[in-house]
This record gives sequence, C-alpha cells and structure tokens, in this order.
Amino acid sequence: MRAQDLAAEFPTVTLDTPALEAARLLADRDLPGLIVVGPDGLPCSILPGTQVLRLAVPAYCQDDPALARVVDEAHADRFLRRLDDRTVRQCLPEEPRELPVAEPKATMLELAALMARMHSPLVAVVDDGRLIGAVTLQSLLEHALRP
Amino acid sequence: MRAQDLAAEFPTVTLDTPALEAARLLADRDLPGLIVVGPDGLPCSILPGTQVLRLAVPAYCQDDPALARVVDEAHADRFLRRLDDRTVRQCLPEEPRELPVAEPKATMLELAALMARMHSPLVAVVDDGRLIGAVTLQSLLEHALRP
Repeated sequence: MRAQDLAAEFPTVTLDTPALEAARLLADRDLPGLIVVGPDGLPCSILPGTQVLRLAVPAYCQDDPALARVVDEAHADRFLRRLDDRTVRQCLPEEPRELPVAEPKATMLELAALMARMHSPLVAVVDDGRLIGAVTLQSLLEHALRP
Repeated sequence: MRAQDLAAEFPTVTLDTPALEAARLLADRDLPGLIVVGPDGLPCSILPGTQVLRLAVPAYCQDDPALARVVDEAHADRFLRRLDDRTVRQCLPEEPRELPVAEPKATMLELAALMARMHSPLVAVVDDGRLIGAVTLQSLLEHALRP
C-alpha cells in the first residue's frame, strides 16, 4: 500500500486565512493539524493544532502556564479573541522547518517514519507539483492494523 | 469554564500494556494521544500518537525517511509487527518530561497554555491524587468557539 492509496482529501488554508477561521476548521472537522498552501497550491507549512493555540495564548502564560491563573475565568473563557485580527501567517514558526510531505509512491513505513521523525500526525502527499491529499496518523494506523 | 467542566472520560494504558494494543486504541477511538498511568493510577506519561509509531520504525528510517524506500512494499505494509513483543514502557521518552496535567480549577486559558507550551493536544485533569479525565484540543476549541 502506498501514499496514493491512503491519501484522502484534506482541507487547506492559506497564509491569509484568519487564524480564528483556522481554529474553527480544526474544531469542526476534528483535524490533527492544518495544511497551509502557498500561492502555487503546494504546502508551505503543516501546522499542528497546538501551534494555532500558541497565537491565542500570551507568551508569559506559555512560559509558565500557572501565570494564566491571574486572568479571571470570564476573560480566560474568551482567550481565542486574541486571534481576532490575526492570520495563519502569524501562527507559523519563525524558522522554516522540514515539512512532512511524501510522494505518491511512499510506502506505509516511509509515512510512519515521516510522522515519527517530525512528530506530525499528518503527512501531505504531493504529486508532480500538485497536492493530492493527506494521510493522517489515524488512517495509517487503521490500515496497518487490518488483519 | 474550568477543567473540571471540560474533562471527559479518557481511556488509559499502563506501562505493561502491549504497544500494539495501545496503537489499536489510538486508531479505534481516534485519540490524539494516550495517558499512561502508573501503579498509583496517576499519569506517569502522556504520549502523543506519533511517539507510539517511533517504536515501530527502525531508527535509521527515522533519521532519514527516504531510507525506508529500501524496504519493499509487502514488508513496509507490516511495519507494526515490530511492536509485537513490546510494551508501552518502551515507547516512553528516555528523559522524563514535564507532563500536561491540570487541576480541576484550571481555566481555559491555562489549559490552552499547557497545550501550547508542551505541544500536547491532550491535558490530563487530576484532582486530589485521582485522574478525573482529560481535555482534548478539539474539545477546548469547540467550547472556546461557542458564541
């Protein structure tokens, strides 16, 4: 079995997608992450869901989550408001990173190696300059566990 | 809203759970990770799904996923067989790490800060020496996005 057999349609966002819309997509479709495509339609970043949260959480709280306790419950409930005027571009890591992207012919072991190496529950499958879909950790495990 | 309002029952594994059973649990229940409990019933590790894969993928393939191509498709399809005689204990990182664990009174902002800081789509909620459940990234986002 190859990446092309496992790849399923996967929603994408662009650098200009509002961060709040990206968060809604993650939640509504229960996605393990987001594929961010550039103007050429190819993945320029693959963002784990926890990375989208990073923009909504003040840096001092990320350094020490206990400091979040100084914010009262009513304000804490509305923490996603910080995403209001931000886009996906601002969620991206500052340093460009290796992307979990595979060719259609990649085997299940190769997909697993990419996920394990990059701690990514999501691999984008690109064929000849075109994104054809993605393989999730869940779908890889499901297929690998079939008797 | 507090961690105690968001926490839902979450399956746990122990250090002696077979790694293959852990992989099956991840796949069947579409979990973002696993909570590993020690003999006292408290989380001793919280394992992202990609970490379970690490044990199934030979180290040389993780260092360079392209090397996985030397393994033929039939063998690559059966890569999870490497988990056969292994347990969750062997999936754990060598160095003990900070755990994404919150108290019942933790606010949504505190949960988000823990997920963002530890890149964990899963936070265990512990009350007075007892695991009461977990909050997933998806459930946190769903609640935070409610109008």
